[in-house]
Formats: sequence, structure tokens, C-alpha cells
Amino acid sequence: MRVILIGAMGTIGSEVLKSLADRHEVVTAGRSNGDYRIDISQPTSIEAFFRQAGKFDAVVSAAGDARFGELDKLTQDDYLFSLTNKLMGQANLVRIGQQFINDNGSFTLTSGFLAQVPMPGSSAISMVNAGLEGFVRAAALEMKRGIRVNVVSPIWVKETLEAMGWDSSTGMPAAQVARSYVASVEGTMSGAVLDVREIK
Amino acid sequence: MRVILIGAMGTIGSEVLKSLADRHEVVTAGRSNGDYRIDISQPTSIEAFFRQAGKFDAVVSAAGDARFGELDKLTQDDYLFSLTNKLMGQANLVRIGQQFINDNGSFTLTSGFLAQVPMPGSSAISMVNAGLEGFVRAAALEMKRGIRVNVVSPIWVKETLEAMGWDSSTGMPAAQVARSYVASVEGTMSGAVLDVREIK
Repeated sequence: MRVILIGAMGTIGSEVLKSLADRHEVVTAGRSNGDYRIDISQPTSIEAFFRQAGKFDAVVSAAGDARFGELDKLTQDDYLFSLTNKLMGQANLVRIGQQFINDNGSFTLTSGFLAQVPMPGSSAISMVNAGLEGFVRAAALEMKRGIRVNVVSPIWVKETLEAMGWDSSTGMPAAQVARSYVASVEGTMSGAVLDVREIK
Repeated sequence: MRVILIGAMGTIGSEVLKSLADRHEVVTAGRSNGDYRIDISQPTSIEAFFRQAGKFDAVVSAAGDARFGELDKLTQDDYLFSLTNKLMGQANLVRIGQQFINDNGSFTLTSGFLAQVPMPGSSAISMVNAGLEGFVRAAALEMKRGIRVNVVSPIWVKETLEAMGWDSSTGMPAAQVARSYVASVEGTMSGAVLDVREIK
């Protein structure tokens, strides 16, 4: 398969790249690095990217920003940034990319466990992650030509916790998180929210 | 209690009004009717409303628009409208309203079962409803002064199905849906997604 990976330089993305590169041709795209430039917050950038990327069988997104911060401190702009970037940015990869992807292709997006299990400061991220899962469940019903769409919901990544100087004992190594992305690309499910704890 | 009800003219809102008015002072607000004008898609309108509404103990929102339509036909603007209106509009009632609400007050918002059980055409609505539930779960963790926040998730309302000329046999009468709003206002739960099928 020819797989487009967006966010290949991130903690999760770099492990997804390693996991996929053995068996597939992986094309990377990112805001500031990779084979192609893409800014997922801009629909025009997404469309321009797909127009030049050539034929592909899968899109994997390990990209998308959302703001963490106290409810009292987050601004309207912080929410709009989060909605435009991690939520609509990834939804638009599906909306726009479905016109370009090969038959029986797949889209795999990234949400996160804060969708269901919030923490103080996660109101924008929980909104975005849950919204993305709602979108994926619905969009899957309207995919044509055998196209599938799923979303991976990571828990805390061990390397991320270590980088922040937090207790990483409950974190999952990024290489293990990456297995859920491979399962989505190579599997047959659609409309699924893949809990990384359930993918071995 | 003094309860602010937004969307009191709607199918659900009018039954919530009936259910609450016996036991509470209800102040209504809407885009084009009610005791006060409010456009929830505009944070400045929300703030102006709360500044003039006086003291209150509860906000109930049965308001907020989101676009229904085929994935191929919905535009970026349709999604942004939906995110700005039903999602951020209601989230902003909490974000802004928490500065004005009395101690131990409550916010009750409206999502919908399409968050979890989508149908073709619901991609924007499913996104918005699920996102709102994610927000409420998270925001509840940061409420101060005993303030609570919940979201009611209605199934199809019988009167709505009838108005559309659809089979209404599986719909729930709006008066029964209204019980979940009363349960949220008068109860003690917070961060809850109230499934109207579970509230008797």
C-alpha cells in the first residue's frame, strides 16, 4: 500500500512510521517537515496537498493541536484554534481526501482518552477528541468505494510523560500505541474508535 | 430557584418550561422571543445577556443549531456554523455563565443520541453532540462554588418526527424528554450525560 502519514515527526507518528515502513510505501507530510508540506487547519492546504501527493491507499494522521488549560483561562480563540486544528483539520483530511483516495482505502485519525476520561484543564481537548470520535462514527456510514475511516484513541504515551518529567509508569510506549494505527490501516473495521489498550 | 431557559419556544424547550414553571421562577431567553434576547453563537451576546438577567440558580439550554446533510454536500461553513452554534454556543453558556450564576447553581445543555448512534447525514451533528458531551465531562471537574454542569441527550422526539411526517412510533414525547432537564436542575449530579431513556 501507499500510505500517507501526517505528523511523522511526532512521538507517536515516528513509531507509526517505523511500524508501517517495513511493509508499505510511506509518504510523510507535515507543517514543517516530511516529503510534503501540509497545514491541516487550512482546507486549501489539504486540497493542494492531495492534488500533488499522487495515488494513495491510506491516510494516517498523528497530527493536530488543541489547547490545554484551565477552564477559566482558556479563551474563545483557544477553543476555536482547537476546533479548527485537531478537530476540523482531521475531519477535513477525510472530507477532502475521500475524493482522492483509492478504492478500499482508509483514513486513520487520532483522538485521545481525554474524550471519555477528562482531567482539569482538558475541556477543549476533551471536546475536540470526543467530537472527532462522533464525526468518525458518522462519516464511516457515508464512505463510498469501500473506503474506511477510524480513529485511534491513545492513552498517555510513556515517552511524552518522561519528556514532561511526570511519572511515566502508567504510560504506554509509543511503539505499542503505533500498533493500533497499523491495525486500522491493515484491518477491515470502519467507524471504530480504537482504544490502544485493546490492541495487542 | 430562578431558572434561565434558553430555547423555550422549541419542541423540547416548551415542555421544559411547563415542567419547571410550577416549582420555579423561569426566565426565558431566545434569539427572537422570550423575556430576553440572546444569540448563543456570539460570546458578546451571551455576556450581555447574563449582565442584564440578574441573579439565577440554573441555566437550561434547549437551543443550538447544527447542520444535517450528506458528507459530500456539507461545506466547511456548515461545520463551522455547527461548531460555533450548538457546540461553542452552549459551551460558552457555561464558560461565561459561571461568572454570574449563584453558588450551587447548575447548567444543563442539550446534545443528542446521534453522538453515539449516527445516521447518514449526521456527521456535523454527531461531531457537535459528542464534542459537547466531552466538554461537559471535563468542565464539570473545574466548576467552583458547588456549580454543576450536565448535558441531556434526547432521542428522537415524537412531536418532531410527526412534524416531519416520519414514523413517530419510536419517538419519545417531549414532555417525557423534559423530565431529564428537571432531573439535572433539581438533582445533584454533575458531569453527567443524561440519556433520556434512563430518566423516568
